[in-house]
Amino acid sequence: MPSIQDDILMTTRPLAVIILAAGQGTRMKSARHKVLHPIAGRPMLLHLLASVAELAPERKVVVVGAGRDQVEAAVAGLGVSIAVQEQQLGTGHAVAQAHDALAGFAGDVLILYGDVPLVRTETMRAMLDRLSRGDEPRAVVLGFRPDDAAAYGRIIADGQGVIEKMVEHKDATPEERAVTLCNSGLMAVRSTDLFVLLDRIGNDNAAGEYYLPDIVMLPGAQSAVIETEAWEVAGVNSRVELAGVESLWQQRRRAEAMRDGVTLTAPETVFFSHDTVLGRDVVVEPHVVFGPGVSVADDVTIHAFSHLEGATVERAAEIGPYARLRPGARIGVKAKVGNFVEIKKAELGEGAKANHLSYIGDASVGAGANIGAGTITCNYDGFFKYRTQIGAGAFIGSNSALVAPVTVGEGAIVGAGSVVTKDVEADALCLVRPPQEGKPGWAARFRTKMKARKDAK
Amino acid sequence: MPSIQDDILMTTRPLAVIILAAGQGTRMKSARHKVLHPIAGRPMLLHLLASVAELAPERKVVVVGAGRDQVEAAVAGLGVSIAVQEQQLGTGHAVAQAHDALAGFAGDVLILYGDVPLVRTETMRAMLDRLSRGDEPRAVVLGFRPDDAAAYGRIIADGQGVIEKMVEHKDATPEERAVTLCNSGLMAVRSTDLFVLLDRIGNDNAAGEYYLPDIVMLPGAQSAVIETEAWEVAGVNSRVELAGVESLWQQRRRAEAMRDGVTLTAPETVFFSHDTVLGRDVVVEPHVVFGPGVSVADDVTIHAFSHLEGATVERAAEIGPYARLRPGARIGVKAKVGNFVEIKKAELGEGAKANHLSYIGDASVGAGANIGAGTITCNYDGFFKYRTQIGAGAFIGSNSALVAPVTVGEGAIVGAGSVVTKDVEADALCLVRPPQEGKPGWAARFRTKMKARKDAK
Amino acid sequence: MPSIQDDILMTTRPLAVIILAAGQGTRMKSARHKVLHPIAGRPMLLHLLASVAELAPERKVVVVGAGRDQVEAAVAGLGVSIAVQEQQLGTGHAVAQAHDALAGFAGDVLILYGDVPLVRTETMRAMLDRLSRGDEPRAVVLGFRPDDAAAYGRIIADGQGVIEKMVEHKDATPEERAVTLCNSGLMAVRSTDLFVLLDRIGNDNAAGEYYLPDIVMLPGAQSAVIETEAWEVAGVNSRVELAGVESLWQQRRRAEAMRDGVTLTAPETVFFSHDTVLGRDVVVEPHVVFGPGVSVADDVTIHAFSHLEGATVERAAEIGPYARLRPGARIGVKAKVGNFVEIKKAELGEGAKANHLSYIGDASVGAGANIGAGTITCNYDGFFKYRTQIGAGAFIGSNSALVAPVTVGEGAIVGAGSVVTKDVEADALCLVRPPQEGKPGWAARFRTKMKARKDAK
Repeated sequence: MPSIQDDILMTTRPLAVIILAAGQGTRMKSARHKVLHPIAGRPMLLHLLASVAELAPERKVVVVGAGRDQVEAAVAGLGVSIAVQEQQLGTGHAVAQAHDALAGFAGDVLILYGDVPLVRTETMRAMLDRLSRGDEPRAVVLGFRPDDAAAYGRIIADGQGVIEKMVEHKDATPEERAVTLCNSGLMAVRSTDLFVLLDRIGNDNAAGEYYLPDIVMLPGAQSAVIETEAWEVAGVNSRVELAGVESLWQQRRRAEAMRDGVTLTAPETVFFSHDTVLGRDVVVEPHVVFGPGVSVADDVTIHAFSHLEGATVERAAEIGPYARLRPGARIGVKAKVGNFVEIKKAELGEGAKANHLSYIGDASVGAGANIGAGTITCNYDGFFKYRTQIGAGAFIGSNSALVAPVTVGEGAIVGAGSVVTKDVEADALCLVRPPQEGKPGWAARFRTKMKARKDAK
Repeated sequence: MPSIQDDILMTTRPLAVIILAAGQGTRMKSARHKVLHPIAGRPMLLHLLASVAELAPERKVVVVGAGRDQVEAAVAGLGVSIAVQEQQLGTGHAVAQAHDALAGFAGDVLILYGDVPLVRTETMRAMLDRLSRGDEPRAVVLGFRPDDAAAYGRIIADGQGVIEKMVEHKDATPEERAVTLCNSGLMAVRSTDLFVLLDRIGNDNAAGEYYLPDIVMLPGAQSAVIETEAWEVAGVNSRVELAGVESLWQQRRRAEAMRDGVTLTAPETVFFSHDTVLGRDVVVEPHVVFGPGVSVADDVTIHAFSHLEGATVERAAEIGPYARLRPGARIGVKAKVGNFVEIKKAELGEGAKANHLSYIGDASVGAGANIGAGTITCNYDGFFKYRTQIGAGAFIGSNSALVAPVTVGEGAIVGAGSVVTKDVEADALCLVRPPQEGKPGWAARFRTKMKARKDAK
Repeated sequence: MPSIQDDILMTTRPLAVIILAAGQGTRMKSARHKVLHPIAGRPMLLHLLASVAELAPERKVVVVGAGRDQVEAAVAGLGVSIAVQEQQLGTGHAVAQAHDALAGFAGDVLILYGDVPLVRTETMRAMLDRLSRGDEPRAVVLGFRPDDAAAYGRIIADGQGVIEKMVEHKDATPEERAVTLCNSGLMAVRSTDLFVLLDRIGNDNAAGEYYLPDIVMLPGAQSAVIETEAWEVAGVNSRVELAGVESLWQQRRRAEAMRDGVTLTAPETVFFSHDTVLGRDVVVEPHVVFGPGVSVADDVTIHAFSHLEGATVERAAEIGPYARLRPGARIGVKAKVGNFVEIKKAELGEGAKANHLSYIGDASVGAGANIGAGTITCNYDGFFKYRTQIGAGAFIGSNSALVAPVTVGEGAIVGAGSVVTKDVEADALCLVRPPQEGKPGWAARFRTKMKARKDAK
C-alpha cells in the first residue's frame, strides 16, 4: 500500500531540496527577482518552500544568479542556504553550485524550479517514492503532457515509466515528436549520484550550456519518469505567464472552496490568498478579494465588493457590501460590517453593527453596540496610535469622532455629530453640540446675490 | 399554426406539475435544502414555479425527502402541495408519492426536477403540445445533446421523435452510445396513465430503485421525445454546478439585455437578478451587481462598482461609481448618486444630487437639492426609524448630520458640519457651529514634545 | 526593405480616407449613432481617425446616413468632411457619395468602416504599400480568415495575393466555400480609378444594391489581397458585438501592459482606457477600472476596486483599495490614497496621505500632510467652486470640514471634528469644538422608555 511505503520512505531517507532560481527573468521587466513575484499573495519561491516543508527536508538550497540579496531577505529564517551561480552556464551547472551546501549530506535530492511554483507535495512525494522502488532508477523525471508540445523535450519511456530516451524537440524524429510526454525539468536523484553525474555531462551544444536532463542519458543505470498534469508544472517567464499561473491557482482554490461547501455566486470574480480559510455554508457574492491571513467561520455571508485581509470573521456574521477588513479585524458572531466601513485592529463583539461609512481602528466594540453612520475613531495623533473602547450595548450617533484614548461605557449613548474626547460613563448620554442657529431668509438672499454674480461673469 | 393549438391546449387540458426535490444534495455540503440555493437571487425551486405559473397549472406538487420544513416555508402561499418520499427508492417511486396530492385530478402531468431550474416555459409547453398531438404518445420525454454524453441514458428515436428505445449508458451497445440524444429526465404524461404505469415498473437493477424513465419502455403505447438545448437541462448537484448554472443564467440574461439596447462594457463582470428591468440606452460599466427588485429607466448610466437592490432609477439618472442603492431607493429623473453613497428607503427628486460619502435613509430629497459630501441622515435611535424631509432646492453643507424626524425647508441652506435637530424653515440658513479657536505655535510645540517621546521609546 | 518603401510612399503619394458610417445600426437599438458607441472609452469612429492620423491623410471623409448631426459634432475640429448617403443603396453607392468631398484630390484612397474600429495603422500602411507595388493592382482588398467563414464572401487568390475571383458565400461552389480567406470589405484604390470603377458596377442582385467589392472583378486590371488577423476586422452591428470588440481591445491592451512590465493579478478584471499610460513594476490588483486620461509612474501599486480617471500618479504612490481618482487628481511620489477616498482637481504632495473616507476636491495638499479619516473639503456653495490649501506637514483631524476658500498653514494641526472656515496659521492648532456634556443615567432611562413604547406597539 503506497501510504505505508511513503511513511517508510519519510523515516528512512533524508531529503535535500535544490531550487533553481538563477534565471535572469528578463522578460518580467522587473526590478524584483522573478521568483519573488507573488501568486495568491505569496512569492513563488515561498509557495515551493511551503510545499516541500511537509517533506521535512534536511537541507534546502536556493541557487541564485543576480538578485541574491532580495532572495536571501525573502527566505531569512527559513533554514535555506543560498548558492550562487555566477555565470549562466545551464541547469546542470546551476545544480552543481549546490555542491558545497550539500557537503556531508547523504540521501535523496529533489530539484525544483523557483519559477514553477504549483508543484504539489504529493507529486514530490511520488517522485521520491519512485526513486526508492526496487528497480532503483538513477533519476526520476517529472513528465507532463502539454496542450501544445511544440517546444518541449520528449520522453520516450516504456510501460513501467523506464526512460528509453530523452530528446530535445529540435533533435527529435517525426515519430519522437508524436510522443506527447514531455520533460518538466523537475527531477529526483540520489545525492551519491548527483554530482558524479553532473561531472560527466558536457556542453557540446549550440548554447554551450550544461543541461541537467543530460544526466539521464549518460551510460549506466536507467532513469524513470512519472507523469503529472500540465497545470502543475506551468512556468513563469513573463508577467503574462505570471497571470496565467495565478489564474490556475485561483481556479483550483475556487473549486476546492465550492467542494467544501462554500457558495461562490461568480467564482471567476473572487480572489483568494494562499492561506484563506472558509467555513461551511459561507456565501461569497461577486467581486470579493481576500488578502493574506483571513479566516471565515460557518454561515458567514460576504457581500459584493468586499476586501478582507488579516481578518477573523466569526459564525453568521455579515460582511459588506463594500466592507474593508484590515489586519487585526475580528468580527464577532452575527456582527455586521456594512457599506464603506473599514475595520483595522479592532474587535466587534457578538451582534455589534457598523453599517455605514465608518472607520474603526485600534478599538474594541462590545456586543450589541451600534456604530452610527460616519463614525470615526481618531486613533492617531501623527506620532502614536491610541485605543478606543466602546462598551456592550452602546449607541454611537452618526458622524461622531471618538478621540482616542477614550472609553464609552456600556449602554451609553453618544449624540450625533459629537467629538468625544473624554470618557463617557456607562448608561450616560454624551452630547458635544453647539446650539442650532437659524437665519430666516438668509438663503434666499444668498441665492439672489450669487446668481447675480454668476450672471455677471 | 402552433400558437393557436397552444391556446386550445391551454384552455382544454388541465395541468398538474410535479417537481422532484427529494435528493439528499450531499455534495452541496449545506444545511440549506439543495433546491433552495439561489440562482440569480431566487431559489431554484422558485425559478421553476415562476416558469410553470405561465401555464396556469391546477395543481403543483413538490416531492421532498429531508428538509421538508425548509421547502414548505419557501413555497408558503404559492398553492403548492408537499409530498414526502420517506425513502430514496428512485425517481419513479418519488413521482408515485404525488399520488394523493393528485387525487381527483384529470389532465396532463409535467414532471420537473427542483435542481434543474432553467427549463423555459416554452419548452414545457412544447412537451405538453407534443403529448396532445394526433399520435397520442404515452409520454413525452425531453431530450438534449450534451457536449459529453458519457454518463447519460441514450434515446433512440425515429425522425418523428417516436422513441424506439431508451437505454442507460452502461447497458448501451457501441452503436447506441454513438447516439448523441440523451434523456434529461423531464417528462409529460397523462394523469390517467401515470400511476398505472408507475405500478408496472420494477426495481430489478443494481441500485434496487424504481426509475421513472422505465415507464417509457413498458409494453403498450409508444412515447415521443422532443429536443432542447443542453443548457436548459443543466442540473445542480454541487456548488460547482450551482455556479455553472448561475453562469449560464447570467450569460443569457446579459445577451438579452444587450439585444434590448443596453450597453454592457464588460458583460462578464455584471450580475443581474431574476427580476432586473432595464430600459433602452442604459449603460452599465464594469463590475456592477443587481440584487432583486431593481428597475432602471432609459438613458441611465450606471458607473463601475455600483450595487443596486430594490431600487427604482428614473430616466437619465446617473448612478455611481460606488453607489449603493438599497430597497426603497427611488432616484428621480437626471438625479445623481455618486461615490460611496448609500440610499435606503429614500426618494431623490428630479436633478437632486448626493455625490459623495453620504448615507441617505428614510428620507425624501426634493428636486434639485444638493446633498454635500459626508452628509448623514440619522434615522435610527436604536429603537425606531424616523424620516428626514429635505425640500426642493435645499443645500446641505458637507459633513452635516440631520437628526430625524426633521425637515429642511425648500431652498434652505445648512452650513457645513451642522448637526440639525430642529426643523429649518424654507429659504433660511441653519448653522450649528462653535467658534473657531486658534492656538498659535501649539502644533510646533506638540511636535517637538511627541518627537522627543518617540525617540525616547 | 519595406520600411524604406513605406517612407517613400508616405512622402510621394497623397492619401484620402473614406470611412463608411451610413448603416442604420438598427440592431443597436440606440438613439446614439452606431459609430459613436465607445470602445475603451472612445467612440469607434475616433479610434479609426486616431489610427489614420499617423498616415497624415490629406482628406478624411465620413459617409453618413441618418444621424449626421451626431457624427458631425463628434468629429468637429478634426478636419473631417461629411458626405451624406440619403438612400441605403449599398457600399459602392456609399463610397460614391464621397465624390464631391474628394474633388481635386489625386492619390490613394483608403476605404474603412466606422463599425470596424480595431484596424491598425500598420495594416492600413501595408494595404497602401501593396497598392504601390510594381504590379500596380487596381485595388487592394484586406482579407482575413474567420473561425467560421459561413457568411463571408471568399477571396480566391494566387500565391502572390493576386485575386482570381471574389465570390459571395451564397454563390460559391463547394470548392470555393472550402477557401478560408474572406473579404473584410476594407480596400485601397487609386483616386483616379475609384469613381470610374464605381460608375461601372451594377445593382443587378437580390437587394438591388451597389456593392463596393464588385469593382474588383470588373474587366481590366487585377486586384490584390493582403491578409490580417480576424480580430482586427471584427465589426459591430449589435451591442453583443460591441462588447465583443471591447473585449478584444482589452485583451490586447492587458497583454501589452504585462509585456511592458506591469503586473496584473487578474487581467480579466482590469479595464483600460484608450490612452492609459503605465510605468514599469506597476502592480494592478483585481477589479480596477481606468477611465480616460490616466498616467501612472513606475512602482505604483493600485489596489483592488480602484477607479482612476484623468489622474496622474507619481512614482511609488499607493492607490486604494476603493480609491476614486477623478480628473485633475495629481498624486505625488510615495503619497497614499486609501479606502473610500475621492480626489478631484487636487494635488497630493510627496508622501502625503489621505487614507480613509475623505473627499478632497479643488485642493492642494502639501508634502507629508496627513488627512484624517472623514475629512471633507467643502469646495462648492451651490454656485462657485473654491480652493483649499493645506500646507506641508499639516495634520487634519478626522471628520473635519474645510470650508473653502481656506488655507491651513504648514505644520498646523486641525482638531478632530472641526469646521474650519478661517485660515489656520502655520504651526498653529485649530479647534472648533463645543464642550463635551455628560448626562449620567440618561441613556438607561431612554432605553427603558423606548422599550416600553416598542412593546406597546
